[in-house]
Amino acid sequence: MSSTQPQDRPFFTEQHSEDVVIARAGPNANPRVKQIVDSLVRHLHAAVKETEPTIEEWMTAIQFLTKTGQLCTDWRQEFILLSDTLGISMLVETINNRKPAGETESTVLGPFHVSNAPRYANGSNICLDGKGEPLWVAGQVKDVAGNPIPGAVLDVWQANEDGFYDVQQKGIQPDDNLRGIFMSDEHGRYFFRSAYPRYYPIPDDGTVGQLLRTLDRQPNRPAHLHFIVSAPGYLPVTTHIFTPDCPWLRDDAVFGVKESLIAKFHRSADAVRAERLGMSAPFWEVEWDFVLRREAK
Amino acid sequence: MSSTQPQDRPFFTEQHSEDVVIARAGPNANPRVKQIVDSLVRHLHAAVKETEPTIEEWMTAIQFLTKTGQLCTDWRQEFILLSDTLGISMLVETINNRKPAGETESTVLGPFHVSNAPRYANGSNICLDGKGEPLWVAGQVKDVAGNPIPGAVLDVWQANEDGFYDVQQKGIQPDDNLRGIFMSDEHGRYFFRSAYPRYYPIPDDGTVGQLLRTLDRQPNRPAHLHFIVSAPGYLPVTTHIFTPDCPWLRDDAVFGVKESLIAKFHRSADAVRAERLGMSAPFWEVEWDFVLRREAK
Repeated sequence: MSSTQPQDRPFFTEQHSEDVVIARAGPNANPRVKQIVDSLVRHLHAAVKETEPTIEEWMTAIQFLTKTGQLCTDWRQEFILLSDTLGISMLVETINNRKPAGETESTVLGPFHVSNAPRYANGSNICLDGKGEPLWVAGQVKDVAGNPIPGAVLDVWQANEDGFYDVQQKGIQPDDNLRGIFMSDEHGRYFFRSAYPRYYPIPDDGTVGQLLRTLDRQPNRPAHLHFIVSAPGYLPVTTHIFTPDCPWLRDDAVFGVKESLIAKFHRSADAVRAERLGMSAPFWEVEWDFVLRREAK
Repeated sequence: MSSTQPQDRPFFTEQHSEDVVIARAGPNANPRVKQIVDSLVRHLHAAVKETEPTIEEWMTAIQFLTKTGQLCTDWRQEFILLSDTLGISMLVETINNRKPAGETESTVLGPFHVSNAPRYANGSNICLDGKGEPLWVAGQVKDVAGNPIPGAVLDVWQANEDGFYDVQQKGIQPDDNLRGIFMSDEHGRYFFRSAYPRYYPIPDDGTVGQLLRTLDRQPNRPAHLHFIVSAPGYLPVTTHIFTPDCPWLRDDAVFGVKESLIAKFHRSADAVRAERLGMSAPFWEVEWDFVLRREAK
């Protein structure tokens, strides 16, 4: 008992409040947890001192956090959504996946990835509901020196023309609509057919939606295709391709857009080329390369 | 739509992440909410940049917050407990109740106050279960110039010798055990009988208890009596009196101890005085004055 009661532990004062709290951890504290909590305590106390919330404002924050937790179910994670809309998720993702050598940059995984999507041969069509304008996606997976990476795995998924993923509309969309796994060929090339993506809102009927409205922020994510690209011996990348013309491109509710991830999409009326690709005109085309770095040995 | 899509909204970068998030609020944002959220965003991003959490650590934090919300019921508020144990509650309380003129300092209200406690004449005994050593509490309510304040209302409550409040042990303790409302007399004096208080732990079977253990912190609050003292025309004070000999005095789990709130408690074997006060020896005595400031007109 005496080891937790040193006589130099300070009493609480407004001025030194953060030091008083931080001094309280004992000698057997988990050092990493202590490092993170200490940093949060210093910054949260600083925020309180800057903004001087009233008791009522503090209670509003308590109730907001409580309700955010209580909205979470097996199907909904409102705290991740809060982290996303405050830019925390994107920051953590970026810190953990810095790309110093010109590799394809990462962005948020999002909640709609599923394991074990169908595996397809290059050229296959993942658009199973026939909605939207046809899209041809093709490109190369390569290393930072520009050498092709054959046998890379590309896991792709996207929303349909109505702005919903298949898992959000079970029984309405075909299972595994607009998702699939491809493999790059001997030249590192991949190619498949899909549909032009559409923007869509994050779920905004909870505490996070309420916060966005209070801040006069909109809930949409700009149109994109998701990819996880991996290859043996290389660092995988979780990323998006964004369309350049989406009205929400500079206003992604979860801050997923990095400038390097905006692709050029071309709309074409070329019926001959469309037929050669197994599609109908008018259609869209995007050429997009992925650059991976070798894993450190 | 175009008003939320200005061309100068920056894309996400690690370096300027907090600016990217803050720039997103629209012209109709609630200014006070924006001020508070902006401060939190700046500080949370700074904490992430300092500590560089892994994806797994971030997910642990998400799960911690989610479970904290889900532990809350009509009877338990785990987020308030988290705020308490990080010193946030005490900081907000103190900022909202600064005492520049020597008034009695405030501390946390805590979850065990009830409205409409019984009203007693001075000298009454609020210890209804007969447990613990008898305690005589007396003092004066006065203004900052030292003038007595007659007719001040003193709302007092405390834990019993087992470390529980009556509301935590309904059916075990008598209703309204160790709580009551007194009024200062024409000299500003108040006095009543009670029992010597004991320290007690905050509820530590939830996420907050888990965090305290990870930080090698103990869950006890040092022994104290709660008071809310109010009088017409004066600013009320929500405060405690702490016993000076409690082993947890410098280790209050919720940081409620200010040095000015530690009282002198005397233990006496004087049977004659004990009988005069309506008690039995040995007994404890504490003399404690409350100083209130006039409300601004």
